[in-house]
Amino acid sequence: MSLEVDATARAAVVPDRPDSALLEDLVAANRILSDHGVLDAYGHISARDPGSRQHYWISRAMSPALVTATDIIACDLDNNPVRPSETRLFFERVIHGEIYKARPDVMAVLHDHSPSLIPFCNSDTRLRPMVGNAAFLGEGAPVFDIRTVDDDGDLNVCSLPQARGLARALGSHCLVLLRGHGAVVVGDTIRQAVRRAIIAETNARQQIQATTLGPVHFLTASEIAYAKRAQPKDPDRAWQLWKKRAGISGQ
Amino acid sequence: MSLEVDATARAAVVPDRPDSALLEDLVAANRILSDHGVLDAYGHISARDPGSRQHYWISRAMSPALVTATDIIACDLDNNPVRPSETRLFFERVIHGEIYKARPDVMAVLHDHSPSLIPFCNSDTRLRPMVGNAAFLGEGAPVFDIRTVDDDGDLNVCSLPQARGLARALGSHCLVLLRGHGAVVVGDTIRQAVRRAIIAETNARQQIQATTLGPVHFLTASEIAYAKRAQPKDPDRAWQLWKKRAGISGQ
Amino acid sequence: MSLEVDATARAAVVPDRPDSALLEDLVAANRILSDHGVLDAYGHISARDPGSRQHYWISRAMSPALVTATDIIACDLDNNPVRPSETRLFFERVIHGEIYKARPDVMAVLHDHSPSLIPFCNSDTRLRPMVGNAAFLGEGAPVFDIRTVDDDGDLNVCSLPQARGLARALGSHCLVLLRGHGAVVVGDTIRQAVRRAIIAETNARQQIQATTLGPVHFLTASEIAYAKRAQPKDPDRAWQLWKKRAGISGQ
Amino acid sequence: MSLEVDATARAAVVPDRPDSALLEDLVAANRILSDHGVLDAYGHISARDPGSRQHYWISRAMSPALVTATDIIACDLDNNPVRPSETRLFFERVIHGEIYKARPDVMAVLHDHSPSLIPFCNSDTRLRPMVGNAAFLGEGAPVFDIRTVDDDGDLNVCSLPQARGLARALGSHCLVLLRGHGAVVVGDTIRQAVRRAIIAETNARQQIQATTLGPVHFLTASEIAYAKRAQPKDPDRAWQLWKKRAGISGQ
Repeated sequence: MSLEVDATARAAVVPDRPDSALLEDLVAANRILSDHGVLDAYGHISARDPGSRQHYWISRAMSPALVTATDIIACDLDNNPVRPSETRLFFERVIHGEIYKARPDVMAVLHDHSPSLIPFCNSDTRLRPMVGNAAFLGEGAPVFDIRTVDDDGDLNVCSLPQARGLARALGSHCLVLLRGHGAVVVGDTIRQAVRRAIIAETNARQQIQATTLGPVHFLTASEIAYAKRAQPKDPDRAWQLWKKRAGISGQ
Repeated sequence: MSLEVDATARAAVVPDRPDSALLEDLVAANRILSDHGVLDAYGHISARDPGSRQHYWISRAMSPALVTATDIIACDLDNNPVRPSETRLFFERVIHGEIYKARPDVMAVLHDHSPSLIPFCNSDTRLRPMVGNAAFLGEGAPVFDIRTVDDDGDLNVCSLPQARGLARALGSHCLVLLRGHGAVVVGDTIRQAVRRAIIAETNARQQIQATTLGPVHFLTASEIAYAKRAQPKDPDRAWQLWKKRAGISGQ
Repeated sequence: MSLEVDATARAAVVPDRPDSALLEDLVAANRILSDHGVLDAYGHISARDPGSRQHYWISRAMSPALVTATDIIACDLDNNPVRPSETRLFFERVIHGEIYKARPDVMAVLHDHSPSLIPFCNSDTRLRPMVGNAAFLGEGAPVFDIRTVDDDGDLNVCSLPQARGLARALGSHCLVLLRGHGAVVVGDTIRQAVRRAIIAETNARQQIQATTLGPVHFLTASEIAYAKRAQPKDPDRAWQLWKKRAGISGQ
Repeated sequence: MSLEVDATARAAVVPDRPDSALLEDLVAANRILSDHGVLDAYGHISARDPGSRQHYWISRAMSPALVTATDIIACDLDNNPVRPSETRLFFERVIHGEIYKARPDVMAVLHDHSPSLIPFCNSDTRLRPMVGNAAFLGEGAPVFDIRTVDDDGDLNVCSLPQARGLARALGSHCLVLLRGHGAVVVGDTIRQAVRRAIIAETNARQQIQATTLGPVHFLTASEIAYAKRAQPKDPDRAWQLWKKRAGISGQ
C-alpha cells in the first residue's frame, strides 16, 4: 500500500495510464509503422501527455511490432520513467525529451531507420516533396551530422549533447535525417507523425526513381507555403486502412 | 413515403441501382486496384451509367479497398448525388463529371496516386509504351500542371476550373499525369480503365529501369496506331485472375 | 464409341495423357512461374512428348496460375490440338511448334513477360550473366525484333512467319528477348526451362542495379564455355522448394 | 550395439548433438535467413562447436528454409562428417572448414547468394557501410575472384585450393564477396553472422539507391574503428523479431 502511495506521489500530475484514445493510437502507431517497414526492431514513437505536458508516453525497450497497451510507460522530459520499473528502456529515448523541450508545439516524436531515407542521410541531394501530401518536407529535409557533437561513436543518439544537437538540426522542421543512421519525425498528433513517416519513405523512393529520369520538378514554394496553412483532407481515412492492414480490429 | 416519391422524382432516369454486372465490376475494380497498390486510401473509380449517360456511379468517400456494393451511389455530371445522402463524398469527384462531359466516348474514369507514375509527374521525361499492351500511352502521356489554373493550393483537383483544365490536358488521351499528384485514366469500360492503370504502373517501373541501361526503344508509331484500331486479345483472362488475387470469389 | 475411335485414330502415336511425371512437372511449372511473377495471365509453357516427338503438351488458353492436370492438352507441331476440343487455345502457341521444329534438342518451351526482362527488350544493353547459374545467357541474349517480319501489329507472335523469325533469332541460344514484348526460354527439360526463366529475371534485376554502380564484370568466356559442358549441382533442390512456396504438396 | 561404440569412438570429442541453445540458434538461422531472402535453396550456415573447436555443425545438403534440428550433423575441419551418414552433404562445405582453420576467432560461417550483393560482386565499386550497424564492412568488403585459383569452372568453391584462396581474400574481414557468385559472412556467434548477412543485403540496396543521388558519404574511419571496439546495443531484440517473422515460436 505504501508503495502505491509513493508511486502516486512521484507521478505527480501524470496519470497512471494515458487517455484511452491516445493509448490506442500509440499502440496502433507502433504496429502500423512496423507493418509498413518504416520501423524495424529498433525504432520508437512517443506521445506527449496533453494534460501533463512535462511527460510523454512510450513503450518499454522492445520491437515496435510487438507493442501492446501494457508496454506503454510514462517518462518525464529528462527521460526518467515516472513509476518504478524494472523493464529496459530505449537508450535513445533522450531524443524524445529534448525535442519536447525544444518544440512546445510537438505532441508526438518518432525515430526510425526507414530504408529509403538512408540514401538521403548520406548524400548532398536533399529529400524534397514530390507530391502535395509531402509538402511538410519543405525546401528539403535537414541532415543532422552527429560529428558536429561527437566524432567517434556508434552514431546512436544517446547523450544529452547529441540529442540537443539533433533538436537544433530539426529546428522548426517536421523531419530531420541523421547521417549514417535514420530519421526523426514530429507531429501535432501521433497520427500526423505516422502519416509523415510513411509519406517520407514513399517520397524518398519516388525521388530516387525520378532522379534516374533526369532533373526533378519538386513542389513550388507557394505550394509548400499553402500546406503550412491548410489541413489535409480526411487524413483518418488512411489511418483506418492502415490499422486494418496491420491486423488491428475496431474503429 | 413522400420522401421516397421525392427521391424517385429527382433521380429521373437513373435507376436505383446500377446494372448488376456494372455494379459487380465497379466493386471489383476498387478491390483489384487496391490489391495492386495502384489505389491507396484516396483514389477513386467511377462508371458512367450506360442507360442514363448524364449520371455516373462511384463509391462514397472511403478507402477503395473496403468498398462493397452498398457503398455505390449515383451522381449527375455536376457531381451532385442523385439521392438524398448523409454520407461523405470525394472532394475530387469533380474530375469525373468534367471528363464525362468532355469525353462522350468515356464510360469509366479513375484517379490514382500510382507509386511509379509519380516520378514521371515531376519529370520532363515522358511516360511512353514499353510493350504492346501499353500502346494506349501513345507518343507519351501528357502532364497536367495545376499551376496553369491555380498557382497555390494542395494540388488536389477540387474546383470546376481545375477539373476543366485537367480534362483539357487529357484531351483525347487515355491517361494524363498530374504534376506533384498522380494520374487520371479513362476507358470504354471499367475493365479497360483498370487494365490501363495496372499496365501504366508496370510500364513506369520498367521505363525507369530501362533508362538506367541507356537509350530506350519505345513502340513505333505504326505499332501505336495499330493498337488504336485493334482489340486486345482475351482481356478478361487477366481480370478473372486479378479478382481471384484480390480475394473476390465467383465469375 | 465411334467418336472415341476417331479421336484415337487422329491422335496416332500421342497418348491420351502425358506421362504422369511430365504432367506433374508441367502443372507445377505453371504454378511456380506464376508464384515467382515470371508468368502473368498471358504466358505459357509446353513440353515435347518424349515418346512422340512430333507432339507437345500445353494448357488450354488460361492463366497459368490456375492450371491443373485436366487443362493439359496435346498439340502437333503445326499447333493443332490432337483431340476434338471446344476449349480456347493460346493465340501464340505457334511459338512452341516452330521452336520444336527448329530445335530438335529442345524438350520444353516457355513464353513470358518477365517484368525485369522488358528493359533489356528495349535497350542496346545486352542481358549478360552475372553469376554462374546464369551462364546459359552466354555472351548476351539475342533480341528478336518483330519488325524484321512485320512492321505493324500488336507485337504478339501469332503467325508462322513471325514464329519462324523468332526461332531464327533464338538460334542455338537458351533465351531470346522479344522487343516490346517479353522472352522465350527453352530447355532440355521442363525444370531446366523454368530454372532458366527464374534465373533470368533475377539476373536482369541485378544487372540493372550493377549498371548503377559503374562498369559491370560479367562471366568470362571460359566460365560460359564450362557451363555448356557441365551439369548444375543438385538442381532439384530449388525445384522442391519452389513447389512448396507455390503451395504444391507432395514430392 | 557395436555400431554405436564405433560411432562414439570416431566422434572422439564432439558430442552426439550440439548444445541445445546452439542447435536452436542454428535451425533458427537457416529459417530467418530464408525468410529474409538472404538464403535461397543453395546457401548454408555452420557453427563451430565451442567445446570441440575442431568440429562444426551444419545441415545436410538441403534448402535452408526446410531445416529442422534432426538435419544438423557434425563435420571435422576437413569437412568429413563425424558419424556414418548416407545423406548428401553440401559440395561447398569446404568453405566452412578452411575458414575455421584460418580464423580461430570465428564461430559461425555462412555462404549466401544474397540478391543485392551480386551487383557489388561484379563491380569495382566497393560495398561500404551506410549506417552504424554496417560498420563491420569497414573500408569496403573485399572481393574474391576465383580466377586467382582456377580460370575455368562453375564458380562454386568446392576444392581446397579454392576455399583457401577464399579464406585468404576474407583475411580479417567479416564479409567477403565472391565474383559472379555471392558472399561469405563470419561471426563470433551464429546470431552475429546472421545479423551481418541481413544488414549487408539492406546496406547494398541502400548504397545502390544512394549512388543514383550522387556522391555517397560513408561512415568515417573513426566510426568504423569505434564499431570494432564496441558491442551493438541489445542485438537480441531483432533476433526475437526475426524468429517470430519466420514462424518460429518459443524463447
